[in-house]
Amino acid sequence: MDKIMGNIVVGQSGGPTAVINASVAGVYKAAKDMGVPHVYGMVHGIQGFLERNLISLEEYLDGGISIELLKRTPSAFLGTCRYKLPELAGNEEVYELIFKVMEEFSIEAFFYIGGNDSMDTVKMLSDYAASHGRKERFVGIPKTVDNDLPVTDHCPGYGSAAKYIATSLKEVIRDVQSTGLANPTVLLVEIMGRHAGWLTAAAALAKGEDCDGADAIYLPEKVFDIDGFVEHIKEVAKHKNTIVIAVSEGIKLADGRFVCELGGGADSVDVFGHKQLSGCGLTLAGIVSERTGFKTRAIELSTLQRAASHMASLTDIDEAMNAGCHGVKAAVEGQTGVMVVMNRISEAPYFCEMGTYDIHNIANGEKCVPLGWITEDGRGLKQELLNYVRPLIMGEVLPVYVDGLPAHLVRH
Amino acid sequence: MDKIMGNIVVGQSGGPTAVINASVAGVYKAAKDMGVPHVYGMVHGIQGFLERNLISLEEYLDGGISIELLKRTPSAFLGTCRYKLPELAGNEEVYELIFKVMEEFSIEAFFYIGGNDSMDTVKMLSDYAASHGRKERFVGIPKTVDNDLPVTDHCPGYGSAAKYIATSLKEVIRDVQSTGLANPTVLLVEIMGRHAGWLTAAAALAKGEDCDGADAIYLPEKVFDIDGFVEHIKEVAKHKNTIVIAVSEGIKLADGRFVCELGGGADSVDVFGHKQLSGCGLTLAGIVSERTGFKTRAIELSTLQRAASHMASLTDIDEAMNAGCHGVKAAVEGQTGVMVVMNRISEAPYFCEMGTYDIHNIANGEKCVPLGWITEDGRGLKQELLNYVRPLIMGEVLPVYVDGLPAHLVRH
Repeated sequence: MDKIMGNIVVGQSGGPTAVINASVAGVYKAAKDMGVPHVYGMVHGIQGFLERNLISLEEYLDGGISIELLKRTPSAFLGTCRYKLPELAGNEEVYELIFKVMEEFSIEAFFYIGGNDSMDTVKMLSDYAASHGRKERFVGIPKTVDNDLPVTDHCPGYGSAAKYIATSLKEVIRDVQSTGLANPTVLLVEIMGRHAGWLTAAAALAKGEDCDGADAIYLPEKVFDIDGFVEHIKEVAKHKNTIVIAVSEGIKLADGRFVCELGGGADSVDVFGHKQLSGCGLTLAGIVSERTGFKTRAIELSTLQRAASHMASLTDIDEAMNAGCHGVKAAVEGQTGVMVVMNRISEAPYFCEMGTYDIHNIANGEKCVPLGWITEDGRGLKQELLNYVRPLIMGEVLPVYVDGLPAHLVRH
Repeated sequence: MDKIMGNIVVGQSGGPTAVINASVAGVYKAAKDMGVPHVYGMVHGIQGFLERNLISLEEYLDGGISIELLKRTPSAFLGTCRYKLPELAGNEEVYELIFKVMEEFSIEAFFYIGGNDSMDTVKMLSDYAASHGRKERFVGIPKTVDNDLPVTDHCPGYGSAAKYIATSLKEVIRDVQSTGLANPTVLLVEIMGRHAGWLTAAAALAKGEDCDGADAIYLPEKVFDIDGFVEHIKEVAKHKNTIVIAVSEGIKLADGRFVCELGGGADSVDVFGHKQLSGCGLTLAGIVSERTGFKTRAIELSTLQRAASHMASLTDIDEAMNAGCHGVKAAVEGQTGVMVVMNRISEAPYFCEMGTYDIHNIANGEKCVPLGWITEDGRGLKQELLNYVRPLIMGEVLPVYVDGLPAHLVRH
């Protein structure tokens, strides 16, 4: 075991989640337990790192209480970025600067918590280190509500978003059912996921003894057919007066256009001539309203679904923290150019084991919902999906309430 | 005390809330404690009552556990309606039918949980009873997320929605701040409240040690000036790169048009020629985007804010239940044609006392946010508002989780 004697740095990148900070907490705790002198945080990821915008996590995490608060804080405590490292050829100075900053701060290991693009950063930096005889280690910690990273069974952040989506869906279904007396009402719930339908698939969890669930769930993995969608609603309306549809923001027509693009055409302007920006839920609500005359309402879960730490899953928080711990352990063992992955050993009882995997086989990859988990009619999910997601939403982590609201840990 | 010897009926009306069922629980519990033989529930309010669509609450509420579950179930367990009783003159048969149904089910007291329109129903029926020598009693139990009923200090349902709004706002503010690095991003959060700005005013609760809060909060109580709104954003953008604005769905221009109407004009159609339906948040996002070039995002809290029982306030749940209990007590004492009201006896420590008030002075009235509680620039709320709302969001009621999700009580 090649003990880390120097300092480490941790950064967050890409879209935030409800549990991305639990991974920072995991990196910090494991590092301090192993005697790392300083744990730095990059403010706004690699972009901030290039500007030497680092903070000492010791300043914020001085005890168990602050770590518990960090675990309950949504979104990226350190700030994220969407900065993509340029190709090495012709941009050597960017890479040299990164390693220069690492030297200045005596940083021996670099942990980057993020999704696909962030893993590309880990790959580029570890490749550079390997080709330039550098000893610094680079480890990726998975994070994405989209759950679309390859190799790993799932990604921290997904379980909590899934729990929020299913909870909110149950609540708004109760709401629409309580009011729908005579005329059919169609509720469209738009869920994140531009290419992979994992989040929208989580809508399937809502169905149970106390909830009818959604009448249809449309994922981007299948081509979306507007006529079939409207016909199905008319069919359901024959025996129900409230119809609930979950749609992924990324659903596309056979010709490749996103449904959300249909609502943003040149003709779509308001009375001032301003272009209207609207998602696919609102676009479909307009179509349903016109073609059926039914009352419609569109709800877009927007960033609420990735920021709702008040509804975080205990399993997810624990795994996010453990992923951070495991990343530090891997670096201490001498690993670099890897991402922490979760391997599902058993489904019932649920058990996942942490491991690592070569970053080259992960970066820029994308894992979608298996087509075999989607029902033949393209409007629902099979039991396999439920078996996969259910364990990830189990358990709760109570917020720390101050003056009636969940408290968060923030940078000064 | 003129003891009720017969049965009672309880109904829910208007828009649902997170705690409207706690009032049903309160009516039920108080009635059973007093020995009322049968507590009937109207399915979909007075509209269902006219069709003799009644259920026996005893069938569902057979013990303490089911009452606790009912308290944690959002939206109207019994179903609501938006049916307005016709004027008596020329419609005597409607009133005769109602009293006939009451006789058939040996109902001596009628409890109606709702907002302004529902209180009108209580008024009409109690007036009819008085003028026709009927002994049945009619009592209103206040309920509305809009918090706009007159006389009562506040309305059950408001506190929980306020807690959800402030919690969600804190979370999405963290989200936008974590990503906002270079270019200004403007987040518009649209909150319910067509005429009264109480819900939107609750956004002011988000500001605290760990949160900057919203940069502006626009209520329908003040005329909305689009130019001033855009100028303010440009001003804030000089020293901040994430700007958060809370707007009420009901904000209006000086000429009386709703802002949300601007986005729904004849020109506002998508590429298929479908009319676009969008709220004021999305409309304003389009305007900001065009006039400033800043990135924008609009979040509409929609029915999520009134259905989020997972974030209910303990104070609100307790008061909703107590309001139901107090209504039964009032009816037993012989009161009729009244609504239960809450009188704030003390603000710190917070203490509210239940009472009743003549329904004639309540029905169809409307209480808005006092103009004196809005800052002079019309973009914020004063301490008086915070002092008023804060006690209403205090405390939590944990959901009963089954398979990772909050469980609800539903009708078969």
